Amino acid sequence: MAESAASADADPLYREAVVDLLGAIAYGEISAFERLAEDAKLAPSLADKVDLATMASGELTKVHALHDRLRALGADPFEAMAPFREPLDEFHRHTAPADWHEGLVKAYVGDGLANDFYREIAAYLDPETRDLVVSSMEEGSHATFVVDRVRAAIADDSRLGGRLALWGRRLMGEALTQAQRVAADRDALTALLAGGVDRPGLDLAAMGRMFTRLTERHMARMGELGLDA
Amino acid sequence: MAESAASADADPLYREAVVDLLGAIAYGEISAFERLAEDAKLAPSLADKVDLATMASGELTKVHALHDRLRALGADPFEAMAPFREPLDEFHRHTAPADWHEGLVKAYVGDGLANDFYREIAAYLDPETRDLVVSSMEEGSHATFVVDRVRAAIADDSRLGGRLALWGRRLMGEALTQAQRVAADRDALTALLAGGVDRPGLDLAAMGRMFTRLTERHMARMGELGLDA
Repeated sequence: MAESAASADADPLYREAVVDLLGAIAYGEISAFERLAEDAKLAPSLADKVDLATMASGELTKVHALHDRLRALGADPFEAMAPFREPLDEFHRHTAPADWHEGLVKAYVGDGLANDFYREIAAYLDPETRDLVVSSMEEGSHATFVVDRVRAAIADDSRLGGRLALWGRRLMGEALTQAQRVAADRDALTALLAGGVDRPGLDLAAMGRMFTRLTERHMARMGELGLDA
Repeated sequence: MAESAASADADPLYREAVVDLLGAIAYGEISAFERLAEDAKLAPSLADKVDLATMASGELTKVHALHDRLRALGADPFEAMAPFREPLDEFHRHTAPADWHEGLVKAYVGDGLANDFYREIAAYLDPETRDLVVSSMEEGSHATFVVDRVRAAIADDSRLGGRLALWGRRLMGEALTQAQRVAADRDALTALLAGGVDRPGLDLAAMGRMFTRLTERHMARMGELGLDA
């Protein structure tokens, strides 16, 4: 642990980027907990409520390992999370689900998008940080219960499918808006993707391909839910 | 697992009591999750919010083992929980915290009271069920962060101490009211405490002593918080 912290210390800009990244993921999980716990209130049955509450708890239990790693890097976890509160809170404010099905689609799409992003960024990290980031997405499989519920609901009500397809597009649009805002504000994090003296990075064309991949996977997820992307 | 399920099957009244008990604990944890997640919104800082949200998640992660055990006993977990929804929801409706400090005291007192009750009832259970019930209280130590916060707050504001002391009494009163309601409705659960042909139980005097112990421990907990019980 001390050794790996030292490896991030060797390059101050890389360390800054890792602190940003872990802070962003940690606050993302806290805010996901809050929103999923809130959306669980819309559940039509106690079994549905337990499923969404389980997703909420899964998010929160991962926060502590991220905070421990931030402390090992000499950072204060709450300072590290601070720059990401406004963009993530804003995302959730703009995407408050109007009903249970919007909440389910948001949980599934949001979880999937976060996991895809972690997978993309993992390639640019030192092994310890990479393991931690990858473990932050391991419990995402809980989200699969959503597929059955959404598919059953749109089979019963075809107009619901149209509304949820629009909703999925809005979620992706808001996520990209806030991601661009973060990219513009956080130079170190952006530089991590762009590479360093002894680290390969992404040029603009490669960055474009990454966004294309994220968008394609989002569309595939919408397809799994039975929705037009 | 199958063997222990069979041991509860050997005595239908005992099995019914275990199904009731596990159903009550499981729904208690779901409703505690909901209330703690809601009360976390009142947190004055993000660090406080994470602490209460961690307690909430701790409650929910224990639900699944209880549900698995109920299924092993041939019971439907949601049917097993059903009789306890109304009394537990009623408890929470009557004890909605007005502010952050009331929420903290409720989390601490509620967690402590539930753990004390599990410890009392564990003596009357078969080993497998006992282990499961005891493991339901292992994470209660998270609640200790509450002591520092409440003590600091009443040191700053002496009138708060008086208000929170009254609040603690109200929490205990509401808990006893709902417990009596459950005891009156659920014969098998009450019979578990009263014993069976080959199981020792509590006579009325012993039951009275148990309630005295629960009350004394509640008062000790209020003392730890710096509050008059």
